Amino acid sequence: MLSPPRPLLASLLAVCCATAVLAAPAPAADLTPGLLSRAKTVRDRALLDDTGYECLRSLTTEVGPRLAGSPGDARAVAWGVAQLEHLGFRNVHPEPVRVPHWIRGEARAEITAPWPQALVVTALGGTVATPAGGVEAEVVAVGTLDELAKLPDDRIAGRIVFFTHRMQRTHDLSGYREAVPIRSRGPSEAAKRGAVAVVMRTVGTSPERFPHTGSTRDEANGPRIAGLALSNPDADLLEREIASGRPVKLRVVNTSSWADSTLSANVVGEFPGARRSHEIVLLGAHLDSWDLATGAQDDGAGVAIVIAAARLAAQMKPARTLRVVLYANEENGTSGSRAYVRRHWDELAHHVLAMESDLGAYRVLGFGTRVPVAGLDAAREVQRALEPMGIAYDGNATNAGSDVDTLGSLGVPLMSLQTDAEPYFDLHHGPNDTFDQVDPTLLRQNVAAYAMIVYLAAEIEGGFGRLPLR
Amino acid sequence: MLSPPRPLLASLLAVCCATAVLAAPAPAADLTPGLLSRAKTVRDRALLDDTGYECLRSLTTEVGPRLAGSPGDARAVAWGVAQLEHLGFRNVHPEPVRVPHWIRGEARAEITAPWPQALVVTALGGTVATPAGGVEAEVVAVGTLDELAKLPDDRIAGRIVFFTHRMQRTHDLSGYREAVPIRSRGPSEAAKRGAVAVVMRTVGTSPERFPHTGSTRDEANGPRIAGLALSNPDADLLEREIASGRPVKLRVVNTSSWADSTLSANVVGEFPGARRSHEIVLLGAHLDSWDLATGAQDDGAGVAIVIAAARLAAQMKPARTLRVVLYANEENGTSGSRAYVRRHWDELAHHVLAMESDLGAYRVLGFGTRVPVAGLDAAREVQRALEPMGIAYDGNATNAGSDVDTLGSLGVPLMSLQTDAEPYFDLHHGPNDTFDQVDPTLLRQNVAAYAMIVYLAAEIEGGFGRLPLR
Repeated sequence: MLSPPRPLLASLLAVCCATAVLAAPAPAADLTPGLLSRAKTVRDRALLDDTGYECLRSLTTEVGPRLAGSPGDARAVAWGVAQLEHLGFRNVHPEPVRVPHWIRGEARAEITAPWPQALVVTALGGTVATPAGGVEAEVVAVGTLDELAKLPDDRIAGRIVFFTHRMQRTHDLSGYREAVPIRSRGPSEAAKRGAVAVVMRTVGTSPERFPHTGSTRDEANGPRIAGLALSNPDADLLEREIASGRPVKLRVVNTSSWADSTLSANVVGEFPGARRSHEIVLLGAHLDSWDLATGAQDDGAGVAIVIAAARLAAQMKPARTLRVVLYANEENGTSGSRAYVRRHWDELAHHVLAMESDLGAYRVLGFGTRVPVAGLDAAREVQRALEPMGIAYDGNATNAGSDVDTLGSLGVPLMSLQTDAEPYFDLHHGPNDTFDQVDPTLLRQNVAAYAMIVYLAAEIEGGFGRLPLR
Repeated sequence: MLSPPRPLLASLLAVCCATAVLAAPAPAADLTPGLLSRAKTVRDRALLDDTGYECLRSLTTEVGPRLAGSPGDARAVAWGVAQLEHLGFRNVHPEPVRVPHWIRGEARAEITAPWPQALVVTALGGTVATPAGGVEAEVVAVGTLDELAKLPDDRIAGRIVFFTHRMQRTHDLSGYREAVPIRSRGPSEAAKRGAVAVVMRTVGTSPERFPHTGSTRDEANGPRIAGLALSNPDADLLEREIASGRPVKLRVVNTSSWADSTLSANVVGEFPGARRSHEIVLLGAHLDSWDLATGAQDDGAGVAIVIAAARLAAQMKPARTLRVVLYANEENGTSGSRAYVRRHWDELAHHVLAMESDLGAYRVLGFGTRVPVAGLDAAREVQRALEPMGIAYDGNATNAGSDVDTLGSLGVPLMSLQTDAEPYFDLHHGPNDTFDQVDPTLLRQNVAAYAMIVYLAAEIEGGFGRLPLR
């Protein structure tokens, strides 16, 4: 969900215009009956294939949590290389990526007045420690960042700010997008007004006692305070104490820290195309995860889906190369995505399509595209092939995901599958994101849809053209 | 779920026979139309009354966790006295009860081989600490206590025993009864065979990452080792590592401890009967809870239900006294139940009925009794009054609950309402037992059923007789 930093993007754009002009003949459309039939074969095999599920079992069992920079992250990279080689990928290699290394430590919070109660909390990813021994202060409750902005300084200074906004359950990403600015900017904004810590109702829809982590972004030169998430029932409890009308005090302790940045890697593997192997269909997912669970849905499922989909599509020997990229560090700054662009700069014009899987192995509800007008006919042909799976067209302005959107900005056509976000945000970034939460039938449905799309994209005459640079 | 210790029971029985002979005229049956109509008025008022829900909001917000012997326990006793007085009960007073005082400390477990992963665990209530620094050993997996008994000593000695039994989801208590002996006796039995620690798949049905606590009972003179519960997904993970066929090692750390026993109290309050005030209908629930949550269903809901039900029934001025007993320390040894029997020994013969609420505020599925044959007609009249609420008769051999069963052994007729145990064991004894999990509509249904029963019991001519002594 993060844009690349402006200086990089500007320099890339300056160079890329020439490249873009060189690419992009006007694409043709129409799937031949033979091509459509082979795509259906790919789909039908995928619906009977458990390569993806077994891959996910292996990742969650043998690696587990894999936060960027952690020992688990290094194990994940080794796992990724071994797994791709084991499954017959070619040109398998890690591509080094410098990643930040944040260490969770321990977080605790308790209401100390009027009625003492311990709260279940988790530190937001990237947040700083409290002063040693913690901080204790009166709580000031606000709904959102806008409400915070309207409060006078003397209501905030020296207090602990409690953001009460409750994330809505939605099938698309709108509930998440509405909630996430509080996580990203809440601690920073509250610190500028003199607050001593922030607690927030979790960005997550589970009614159970799970707080969810996720990155917060302190301003580089601003004051920094600890930011913690409360589970929904704990936020309810804090609100009930506040509703008593008595002053409510919290004690918050957090011991997280930043270590030096370190090297991780994007893991890349391919099935070279049978006829136009210099043209690339890219299928990405991120290999890192948050640290509270084994990252089964976020994004182990994506890793499993793209590996299985590329492998199944490749069995039909399509013209173009199918490249899988298991990105490093999506969660804590998308440095893997930027590293990929830098390293593969010279072949960006040969990327015919990029897509990623990063919304869990839930029911696929929609198919989105971001292709030039000239490529729309071809894109709609792909959509028609998906239609029997109950996947509706979702328009040509898709947000394809935080790891491939930069490629879109640089002209590469994007496609995406929108899974049902409603169950996803019950467990996203929380302790409950474990293997048992993944439904193998739905995982196969995802593999089938991705496999069909990338197979067609690796075959369709002329591809989808080039997007205008942004 | 625990029987009273034999020595107490034997001494009570020896004295009680005489008392029992003095009581128990043959009871009559038949509800008069007037009585039935008044019982329906009680029910209908209860279905519109939120006294119970507000009582539960207050207990979970203003007191929170209240493990026997803890500061929360003392606050709960003060709360109970204040709440009963506030709601118009008479003769409100605490009755001292000596309770054990176990202190949780911190529990951690991690798989160290073949694939290192941290596990979500919780210490079983009453378990001992590991040696300082913890223990690390190879794991031996067994399903049940029977399987443990069949293993040769050399497979157990020096190892960490992992009980894999998965509790079944059942609407009655059978799933719980099957699982709970592992929690009660697993650490003790494994210790006798030389194991160095025990981990067990949680006694709980939640598929989420919640391990559940609950009491374990080390043998007085046997060796003692730490016993921890794993959440279901964590037990799954451990089983997957074991399924690899490689030796699996665990590291377990636990720092729990026992403090000196201390004084808590049963909180007692009454609505004196209008005509036969020396005859008592007892309505109990336990005021203590485990420490991982606010004990909303276990047994805050019971506390709320019996308080609200007694109050509503009392508005109709029944003949007999309605007595509410909020028992101390059900969870860690039922010492409150034994203290009540000792203190009220002389009036046990005047207890016309005892019942308790300790299965959460879920849908009421059944009505059970334990009355002498001579009292069955009257009991079935009560059941017929409940029938329009969809509550079926569940037979005359009810287990009425761990706090009142001793009264049954001593001749007091028992009744019980069996709520749906299926959702209950998702959260029972775990971190998720919070206020938001209680459905106010179902809580009112419980209050209505209890209020109707105790009102009728406080009016029915001749009561239900006396049970034979056990």
